[in-house]
Amino acid sequence: MSTTSPQSTPRINVTQVGDALLGRWKAERLESRALASDPRLHTIPGQPMAEHRERALSQLGILVENGAIQRAFPSDLGGADNHGGNIAAFQELVLADPSMQIKGGVQWGLFGAAILHLGTRAHHEAWLPDVISLKLPGAFAMTEIGHGSDVASIGTTATYDEATEEFEIHTPFAGAWKEFLGNAALHGQAAVVFAQLITKGVNHGVHAFFVPIRTPAGDMLPGIGSEDDGVKGGLNGIDNGRLHFTHVRIPRTNLLNRYGDVAADGSYSSSIDSPGRRFFTMIGTLVQGRVSLDGSAVRAMQAALTIAITYGSQRRQFPGASGRETVLLDYGQHQRRLIPRLAQSYAMAFADEKLLTVFDEVFSGARDTAENREDLETLAAAFKPLSTWAALDTLQETREACGGAGFIAKNRFTSLRADLDIYVTFEGDNNVLLQLVGKRLLKDYAAQFAGGDKAALAKAAATQLGDKVSRFGLRQMGQSIADLGQVSRSVESVRAPEAQRALLADRVETMVAEVALALREAGKGIPREQKQARAIAQEAAFNAQQHKLIAAARAHAELLQWEAFTEALEGITDADSKRVLTWLRDLFGLGLIEEHAAWYLIAGRMSAHRAEAVTAYIDRLIGRLRDQSLDLVAAFGLTPELLRAEIATGIEAERQAEAQAYVEGERAAGRWPIHEKELRSKAKAARKAETAVG
Amino acid sequence: MSTTSPQSTPRINVTQVGDALLGRWKAERLESRALASDPRLHTIPGQPMAEHRERALSQLGILVENGAIQRAFPSDLGGADNHGGNIAAFQELVLADPSMQIKGGVQWGLFGAAILHLGTRAHHEAWLPDVISLKLPGAFAMTEIGHGSDVASIGTTATYDEATEEFEIHTPFAGAWKEFLGNAALHGQAAVVFAQLITKGVNHGVHAFFVPIRTPAGDMLPGIGSEDDGVKGGLNGIDNGRLHFTHVRIPRTNLLNRYGDVAADGSYSSSIDSPGRRFFTMIGTLVQGRVSLDGSAVRAMQAALTIAITYGSQRRQFPGASGRETVLLDYGQHQRRLIPRLAQSYAMAFADEKLLTVFDEVFSGARDTAENREDLETLAAAFKPLSTWAALDTLQETREACGGAGFIAKNRFTSLRADLDIYVTFEGDNNVLLQLVGKRLLKDYAAQFAGGDKAALAKAAATQLGDKVSRFGLRQMGQSIADLGQVSRSVESVRAPEAQRALLADRVETMVAEVALALREAGKGIPREQKQARAIAQEAAFNAQQHKLIAAARAHAELLQWEAFTEALEGITDADSKRVLTWLRDLFGLGLIEEHAAWYLIAGRMSAHRAEAVTAYIDRLIGRLRDQSLDLVAAFGLTPELLRAEIATGIEAERQAEAQAYVEGERAAGRWPIHEKELRSKAKAARKAETAVG
Repeated sequence: MSTTSPQSTPRINVTQVGDALLGRWKAERLESRALASDPRLHTIPGQPMAEHRERALSQLGILVENGAIQRAFPSDLGGADNHGGNIAAFQELVLADPSMQIKGGVQWGLFGAAILHLGTRAHHEAWLPDVISLKLPGAFAMTEIGHGSDVASIGTTATYDEATEEFEIHTPFAGAWKEFLGNAALHGQAAVVFAQLITKGVNHGVHAFFVPIRTPAGDMLPGIGSEDDGVKGGLNGIDNGRLHFTHVRIPRTNLLNRYGDVAADGSYSSSIDSPGRRFFTMIGTLVQGRVSLDGSAVRAMQAALTIAITYGSQRRQFPGASGRETVLLDYGQHQRRLIPRLAQSYAMAFADEKLLTVFDEVFSGARDTAENREDLETLAAAFKPLSTWAALDTLQETREACGGAGFIAKNRFTSLRADLDIYVTFEGDNNVLLQLVGKRLLKDYAAQFAGGDKAALAKAAATQLGDKVSRFGLRQMGQSIADLGQVSRSVESVRAPEAQRALLADRVETMVAEVALALREAGKGIPREQKQARAIAQEAAFNAQQHKLIAAARAHAELLQWEAFTEALEGITDADSKRVLTWLRDLFGLGLIEEHAAWYLIAGRMSAHRAEAVTAYIDRLIGRLRDQSLDLVAAFGLTPELLRAEIATGIEAERQAEAQAYVEGERAAGRWPIHEKELRSKAKAARKAETAVG
Repeated sequence: MSTTSPQSTPRINVTQVGDALLGRWKAERLESRALASDPRLHTIPGQPMAEHRERALSQLGILVENGAIQRAFPSDLGGADNHGGNIAAFQELVLADPSMQIKGGVQWGLFGAAILHLGTRAHHEAWLPDVISLKLPGAFAMTEIGHGSDVASIGTTATYDEATEEFEIHTPFAGAWKEFLGNAALHGQAAVVFAQLITKGVNHGVHAFFVPIRTPAGDMLPGIGSEDDGVKGGLNGIDNGRLHFTHVRIPRTNLLNRYGDVAADGSYSSSIDSPGRRFFTMIGTLVQGRVSLDGSAVRAMQAALTIAITYGSQRRQFPGASGRETVLLDYGQHQRRLIPRLAQSYAMAFADEKLLTVFDEVFSGARDTAENREDLETLAAAFKPLSTWAALDTLQETREACGGAGFIAKNRFTSLRADLDIYVTFEGDNNVLLQLVGKRLLKDYAAQFAGGDKAALAKAAATQLGDKVSRFGLRQMGQSIADLGQVSRSVESVRAPEAQRALLADRVETMVAEVALALREAGKGIPREQKQARAIAQEAAFNAQQHKLIAAARAHAELLQWEAFTEALEGITDADSKRVLTWLRDLFGLGLIEEHAAWYLIAGRMSAHRAEAVTAYIDRLIGRLRDQSLDLVAAFGLTPELLRAEIATGIEAERQAEAQAYVEGERAAGRWPIHEKELRSKAKAARKAETAVG
């Protein structure tokens, strides 16, 4: 309950805030939302797997008919060369049916995109029109049972035979079976298969090959085996399965040869000399999957919050002192559960918009530099883990906040959660991605010291950690003494955006410096010649720091999200909207500081007094934002057709009105029974009065 | 990887630790596990709802045939008066199929138990034999759409009609529809209906009534309506639905009259004067649902940890410095994800055994006092939330730790998680239960001050908080200075069990005192006469403290779990087992202290130095326990028939052996291609040598 008077309470401009959330690809998003409102594209809860799979396939046909999926492809092949708009539109489909969305992602975002980005013009002309039209459904055969995160170590081979000018695709052992592939169990007629390219007795590393696997009638081609992964935790509209290859021959020209080629005589060539860099360049073209999931996760969060906050502001439980039952959203605990997650969803929405912008700049060619590609990869690897985890967390908390009603499939939470579960480990396992970010942070940190001057690094790290080392010294004491003054001064010192930024950034920098310093010590005592012993020691040292490095990567991602939110505030011109969104940004920033308070306290970055002030101010912000929360979810712009949750339709308020009218009617008619409790207290009062009189 | 030499590494006695986990009702547990191994009782992933519902019903028949469910009923009616053993056996069924388990829980633990505990001898004789034999499937009609947690406010009425000596059961508005009831949509032929008992114009509060609802052929009886809740997030083998009643008449004697009765002339009588206490006594007899869920959640955690730790100790990913790929469980992050959760599962298993013991003491009559009943309720309200949340958390983390394989239904995580989701909000919403615990803590705290002496309370609270207030004073400085000495001394000071206990207990006591103090201040300035204004102020004050009170309740539950673990250590005679389990207990205790480090730092209970020592020691414990983890999950005693997860069968190790044999064979035969990377470094080395020679 807000404590300010109604007059002084700002109200956001829902349209302006909504536009800020829709961002640069507003038109594509709205077009896609309109399509996602079509009942033919909606999940049917409990639909058996076989039917759901057929339905998802037919839904892809509807997407094609509606021109919903071709934006990213070349204009002259039926596309629009619109990379950012393509992903933006794709993200919106999650609210129709995630199975349809991800099956579409397999077809156009993985299978089609691999042909586009790893193939060359002849491949585009030969296959893309049929890929776009869905005449040629395909699978993306990268992951194997034995190797998921470590793609470089896959076992499938593509051995060149000069005699026939063919590649032989082969699965040498069960661990090399391609696994978890959408479209592999039933619908795929071809696959982009990743395999170790071997020619003239040399393995040139992982390359992608176009391999037909099934006839249009659905029969497997010779040498190709398929097994069905069966029922999954979600996304059961997708026919995931395994593929294996027994000496399957394909023409030499089926190698997707943008980054590496084999001539008729078997000689290998590549525009990228280093096999390592070549591999990462090829893999890097597939970053769009991560970008897509990031925004999809945000959309699912927004839907969950809209449903739960709508219901929470209608649902009443337990009699209140005011005489009516208390609205759930007026409970302190309920606010603590929902409102910080609302703030987080805003931060992540603005962060996704930023990620998508960088993605578009790189893929449109507008700013396609090696540096931007690397930044894009790091950004995607930072945001996708946090948003997909946050989506699961938010879907669960909102489902619980709606009690039993939250568990009924028609209220959406559980099926979205089941489907989005896999988002946290596919397209890059979240922990592996954060480790990637962590390694990039370490690299950037070390790069400050030209020529790999490790002594300078150590010195800088020591300086970085200086404040921490002196935490029992004067600096800490000074802050403690200052903090003994007014609480408001303590709050002021963390409320300012510069202060929030400094605290968030400091944590990232200090943690990275600490890890760098610890790694530097590793293997120090072991002579240079003992390479393996040194490597083992370094591996052990890294392993001991892994947990901290991943925490640092997460802190980095949080800082970037906070910055994206702060940047977005600049674009808000409406004063009230700006004020409310600033509260929301502060709640997000201070929430992170509260979450990591132990770190700030241990590192001597914050006094106990200040940490308490942060919590007190968070409580105040939550109280203020409680009354804003309906507007803030309204700005998501999710229509009833997208939400499709019975409890978000107002049905709960209607039921309460009916119940209240009934009770009032009975009372008025003198039919409402007196409660025994009331009778007893009346009797007690009467006895008292009697005694007093007697 | 353990750093100690193999000789010095203790190994637990799996049988002894296993027996400690099985506890007092080992025989019943093993009997139930044998039954749960029967394939006829197993979940079929993806089975369509309608078929799953019929299967679950037929599975209940198998339970009856095998004498699996009657233990709690009176001996002379076919039971065994074995309350603890009944729940213990019930808990084990979760690994067969949670739908079957919970449908059984509805039939015998709710419907049957309500007749047993709220009814009297005539009711037992009339209905229990048919309830036990499943001839009479029934629903437990307590929750309504409009009132879930607040049962006292339900809208269904049972109005006595002296003329016909009948009660008229009636649903006055849609909000009073009974909702989410298992057996209501299809199979229930009767229901125990909770309704406001009205006689002679007085509402005597909520009572339970036996109401026939369907013919054995499945037709609804006159005046009774049923609607199907349809697909849910899990437990789809249960036919949850709604029931509503339109002036349905039942005989007077269908009132389950143990705690309140209506004579033929309509006069009401009860052995419990206070309507409030009467209500809570009736509700209190149904505590067994919470006890059941607590242990079921633990069993699901154990299964998830067994599967993930087995897989994690076989699965390899990314080449390691040793020359082979690294085993997942050797990664620092992987250990941090799984091993603390293993420690937690042990604490919760021992805590559940304690809860079950108290339950048995009360329900067997051995120690059935009002105080024990209250303790039992508080204990159940404390443990059930933590274990059911921990089960969801563990199922999710383990599923992620197994990557894509974790998402395939045949590996168990996802379907168990979907089914257990509702455990956190049914049989008492977890947050509401923790608030109950918090209120009990406040009551006990206030009870220390005889005669409600609030001034004494305030003074005591101030003393309690004294250490905190003086956190910038000498005490803190002293600790800080002491901590500047050896890290080992800091560790020692928290490693001792007394230190762990003191820290955990101090946090509970201090938080409760803080809340009590804050509540005391509420409404102070408002005159006593202004009752509503004071009530509103007090409600607002409570609301502001709600989040903290729930946190205090959770801290209390954690302390009790820690104590249960510590107590269980006393029963372990094998020295190695004791040593390893002590590490595990320490990991659990210090893990809680690390999790709440910010609180300890802010409250001046721990210096920054000591907090760092806690984390460092946790890292050491995890390193030691990594090599113990397979034995520790073996002690759970979960057979392949109970686990039924492909990835826990050793299939991954077999695949790796096959792959390795293949590579070695190819190498031996000289067919293994050289990698371009190797070729390049050889060429580089050759060029170098040439230059040197030249």
